[in-house]
Amino acid sequence: MAFDRLIKSIVEKQNPTVAGLDPKLDFIPDYIKDKAFEKYGKTLEGAASAILEYNKGLIDELYDIVPAVKPQSAYYEMYGWQGVKTLAETISYAKNKGLFVITDAKRNDIGATMEAYANAHIGTTDICGETVQAFGADAVTVNGYLGSDGINPLLDICSKLDKGIFVLAKTSNPSSGELQDKIINNRTTIYETMGKMCEVWGEKVMGKYGYSGVGAVVGATYPEQLKELRNKLPKTFFLVPGYGAQGGNAKDVALAFDKNGLGAIINSSRAIMCAWKKENCNPEDYAKAARREAIRMKNEIINYIGEIKC
Amino acid sequence: MAFDRLIKSIVEKQNPTVAGLDPKLDFIPDYIKDKAFEKYGKTLEGAASAILEYNKGLIDELYDIVPAVKPQSAYYEMYGWQGVKTLAETISYAKNKGLFVITDAKRNDIGATMEAYANAHIGTTDICGETVQAFGADAVTVNGYLGSDGINPLLDICSKLDKGIFVLAKTSNPSSGELQDKIINNRTTIYETMGKMCEVWGEKVMGKYGYSGVGAVVGATYPEQLKELRNKLPKTFFLVPGYGAQGGNAKDVALAFDKNGLGAIINSSRAIMCAWKKENCNPEDYAKAARREAIRMKNEIINYIGEIKC
Repeated sequence: MAFDRLIKSIVEKQNPTVAGLDPKLDFIPDYIKDKAFEKYGKTLEGAASAILEYNKGLIDELYDIVPAVKPQSAYYEMYGWQGVKTLAETISYAKNKGLFVITDAKRNDIGATMEAYANAHIGTTDICGETVQAFGADAVTVNGYLGSDGINPLLDICSKLDKGIFVLAKTSNPSSGELQDKIINNRTTIYETMGKMCEVWGEKVMGKYGYSGVGAVVGATYPEQLKELRNKLPKTFFLVPGYGAQGGNAKDVALAFDKNGLGAIINSSRAIMCAWKKENCNPEDYAKAARREAIRMKNEIINYIGEIKC
Repeated sequence: MAFDRLIKSIVEKQNPTVAGLDPKLDFIPDYIKDKAFEKYGKTLEGAASAILEYNKGLIDELYDIVPAVKPQSAYYEMYGWQGVKTLAETISYAKNKGLFVITDAKRNDIGATMEAYANAHIGTTDICGETVQAFGADAVTVNGYLGSDGINPLLDICSKLDKGIFVLAKTSNPSSGELQDKIINNRTTIYETMGKMCEVWGEKVMGKYGYSGVGAVVGATYPEQLKELRNKLPKTFFLVPGYGAQGGNAKDVALAFDKNGLGAIINSSRAIMCAWKKENCNPEDYAKAARREAIRMKNEIINYIGEIKC
């Protein structure tokens, strides 16, 4: 239940970071793309094939040092169903390597439809009596704009199948405040209201380390809000985007953790995926460059928060 | 640009309704499922194959009387990438029959990632110089919780490629008020704030009938709010779920239209898809039963709003 499995892996690896897998074609070395295009042409199938090989290379070099990966669904959907097939294969490959997989899909809908999303991404699908798995991630990001109806179907699955969700609270983008910072009833911001809803939803799926299976997405680009929410939401585990390319630094993200160094996982996508470009190394060493950046990031954060204990 | 194409079709067919394609396996006659399972087994592929045949049958009987169809992404994702392939094939089949296709996906993310979703669902994808289409719907539903960053990438595509979006304002589910009805700054509800943002975003993609390419989702289950938003958002076209199975009736949804009978499209999913069960007719006539229900619904609504003019 809850994020206990993720927390255990974070402590074992002494690494509270997650590698984002947002594979734009620009990020992929030419030798991988050339091979795929030679076989399939510059088609959706060709792109999907290149992405899969690229992802597998990254996972092979990362699985023993990071606890989790976070594929961003948009970067697979833009390559059609062929890209979505690569998403499914990436999830499966990462899970076989022991990684905790968070599908960043920000899904949301009303009750019965949300149940379909829940089954799709973290649950199982019934096909006239046969139980099969569609995508099978360990956690999925969701948007809580529709209220409890859109969250409850997920809680049942979190509870039964040992899965988790992250609900958007304060996102990392420049315009996140347009709605999220607005004050409700003269008292609280929308992002705090959403965070408090996470605390309530989480009561149904509490874990043994003090954190529930209902996490919140809180951006590293707003350190004050990160600190505020860490204090106000003691049972809510945070997924923190915005470190690195978007501007959040290690000092900022340190505010996301409790005194034991628990309570959050920090995402980095571009800096890890494109480390080979920044290093200007041999493109065939792209995954080793990613590993070096993942280790650098881990050390930088651990430097601020100290040993992680549970 | 905008919803001009959709409006033209609504007026030509004198039908302001959209047929939801939310194909649960329960809705599909056994003879279709048996054939698919015989070929592929009770697998994701088998389910996806049955859904595609069922959808094509519905589209064949509906395309000349309804202006649009709305596949709900969740019911395809739950059958894995195989289901997502059926989504792509359903969109393509419906477009070839001249239908306007709204993918109900409620996508949302920050700038660069939202651009990937926009390309995926209503735009085109660049594969190292080759331009291809991933899903190619005419419009997509989105969630505006992240503010303008998450909407602007869509506006560019709406403008360039003659597409539209529907942003969630007031959803049809029982718990929609938990967040959406809260009062901001002692003045306006969150759903109204979101609606007003649609009016502003829409200024960039105005159409010739007075409605922009940025529509709003407003549920039929809250008729007072539907009436309120129709008055306050004169340039925003509404997608109205919640008619039929969820409780909204023709009198309720009539509030969504302007004096010319324009300004909204009413969705019905289950009542159309399962008409054959309610009629208790020969399962092989499932699509003809759907047609009868679609005509009944159209007449019921036209009865309240009169002739549609533009």
